Amino acid sequence: MDYRGRLKRLQQALALRKLDGLLVTHLPNIHYLCGFTGSTGVLLVTAQKSVFFTDGRYTTQARDEVIGPRIAIARKAALAEAAGWLSAQGRRLGRGRIGIEAEHMTVSERARVSALLSSGVELKNAPALVEQARMAKDRDEIARLRASVLLGASLFDTALQTIRPGVTEVEVAAEMEYQARHSGADQMSFETIIASGERSALPHGRASQAAIPASGFVVCDFGVILTGYCSDMTRTVYVGRPSEEARHLYHAVSLAQQSAVEAVKPGVSTGEVDQAARKVLQKEGFGRYFTHSTGHGVGLEIHEAPRVAREQNEILRPGMVITVEPGVYIPGKWGARIEDMVVVTESGCEVLTPTSKDLIAING
Amino acid sequence: MDYRGRLKRLQQALALRKLDGLLVTHLPNIHYLCGFTGSTGVLLVTAQKSVFFTDGRYTTQARDEVIGPRIAIARKAALAEAAGWLSAQGRRLGRGRIGIEAEHMTVSERARVSALLSSGVELKNAPALVEQARMAKDRDEIARLRASVLLGASLFDTALQTIRPGVTEVEVAAEMEYQARHSGADQMSFETIIASGERSALPHGRASQAAIPASGFVVCDFGVILTGYCSDMTRTVYVGRPSEEARHLYHAVSLAQQSAVEAVKPGVSTGEVDQAARKVLQKEGFGRYFTHSTGHGVGLEIHEAPRVAREQNEILRPGMVITVEPGVYIPGKWGARIEDMVVVTESGCEVLTPTSKDLIAING
Repeated sequence: MDYRGRLKRLQQALALRKLDGLLVTHLPNIHYLCGFTGSTGVLLVTAQKSVFFTDGRYTTQARDEVIGPRIAIARKAALAEAAGWLSAQGRRLGRGRIGIEAEHMTVSERARVSALLSSGVELKNAPALVEQARMAKDRDEIARLRASVLLGASLFDTALQTIRPGVTEVEVAAEMEYQARHSGADQMSFETIIASGERSALPHGRASQAAIPASGFVVCDFGVILTGYCSDMTRTVYVGRPSEEARHLYHAVSLAQQSAVEAVKPGVSTGEVDQAARKVLQKEGFGRYFTHSTGHGVGLEIHEAPRVAREQNEILRPGMVITVEPGVYIPGKWGARIEDMVVVTESGCEVLTPTSKDLIAING
Repeated sequence: MDYRGRLKRLQQALALRKLDGLLVTHLPNIHYLCGFTGSTGVLLVTAQKSVFFTDGRYTTQARDEVIGPRIAIARKAALAEAAGWLSAQGRRLGRGRIGIEAEHMTVSERARVSALLSSGVELKNAPALVEQARMAKDRDEIARLRASVLLGASLFDTALQTIRPGVTEVEVAAEMEYQARHSGADQMSFETIIASGERSALPHGRASQAAIPASGFVVCDFGVILTGYCSDMTRTVYVGRPSEEARHLYHAVSLAQQSAVEAVKPGVSTGEVDQAARKVLQKEGFGRYFTHSTGHGVGLEIHEAPRVAREQNEILRPGMVITVEPGVYIPGKWGARIEDMVVVTESGCEVLTPTSKDLIAING
């Protein structure tokens, strides 16, 4: 990974914003900039320097992983240590406008840092510079995402072999997660959703102790983290013989998903992609049952920029990787969702998820 | 669970602090106060009222789970909706001092809420009122924690059956996690740590693709979430025949752990519990290799108040549930940790973790 290039580009972005430094506290941003994957640390980036602060538990891991910044092992909290270092610099430099990640730093953290700073150093809410850089993935990242998507998709075969009337949702999830571990996944990228029967109407129906009924939709939404990168996909299957009504609902979701995928290309806004899915579902009479946004960026985090939702005006660029996942949820009855991951190319997009979207009926 | 009692006690605490309301944004605090387990929502508590704001994805789940507050389904972000409601109230009431959870609310969230408020409403950094209430567990909570600890402990048998030279760390984790799912766990409470060979010197050595070597320590640190409550335990086993040196290290950790457990009783500070473990390890010559704190509270979150660390002066009270987990880590060589969960009783403490702490040697 091009950690040094990323750090350098961040330093250039800081100069443009007239910031003398950035206090990076969001762990995925730290991972992106210097490779550290542990759970405690602060990265301080100034025009000329970068220092990574962590504590004694991570001494070995930091030395193994961090590329670029100098490593400082804090005796107190990493954030306090970073503030102390900044103050010492501030006294030398006379002044400093230091950006903070206001979307991630808590009100208390800001107060604690502020109290430790020498008078010449001033904290400023920085724009989400690292998140913006992370939106367009480079070649190495796309290769990792591709591998993560393929491993994730292989778990759907396990789901198909396991889903039967009477089997509990968590049993399905257990088989998939076991398979994921054995295939080399670091972990699941979020809590596996297996939502059957009436629970298929819950957009976030985490696998429960409920048994899969003899007939109805089963929404399977899952993904893995592989070498740091997340995957995310949803397929909905039908147990038993689908009625006309079930087929119509599934067909509508499928058309909406296809329409949104076709809308993905450079220069289009994410709001337009959302609208493409929404328009189809409105036309099919399901508009008010599509209760969430169409998708989100995926990378080091399962949910990252850009948002693919109503009125969002982020413009798609090559290298962006997003999910496209419309769904229809009829409370108390049933629901269905179909989700792929796509990467924006020079001329349109490539669907990364290799799995068929035809309605699969599983006989009881 | 006594959701109504918790809410009422919070309202009393607010009155004592001269706060007209509290904007609860930390999800485990929301879970504690009203039972909601989803991943998006804001709970607004005033002297007389409580309203839970979430979005359309959680309509059904909120109706199923929330006990106490009125439910409001937000058309925009839940936090913005809560701010709007507050402003409307503010105009009626004339003024309002509304607490925020400064340890959890981000700088940006605070700015967004603030911008939406009418002039009479003022935001104040509130003390961690809900975390303080959560420290001492009630009978229902202790029953759930007990069940979570027992389920977690049963996974150690799976680990013992799986740990063999040549088996990878993730294979061990996979078997444990599969077992957890089949035993009814909601999920693991954190990423399973299986750290073998030199990796046992990493205090946070998440299970990797590394194969377990023919000889050396294997640190196993794991837990589950069962009906919302977390468990956490560590046992360290030895593969092969432990040398005198290995036995000495393990014995020192074991003595330190025992000493800290014996220090746990009402009226003692958590800093004293930490000191009890630290003193033993210093005496045994391992003081500088104990690089983390002795423990932490456990409940709805895997890490919650109180901290059991150097210079902490939180006083133990009956019902508090903490981990006691000293360890010794010699970089590049090996390490060991032993961890139990204990509940503070009227006269001392009860160790919840049922598992033997004798050194187990696994023959290769």
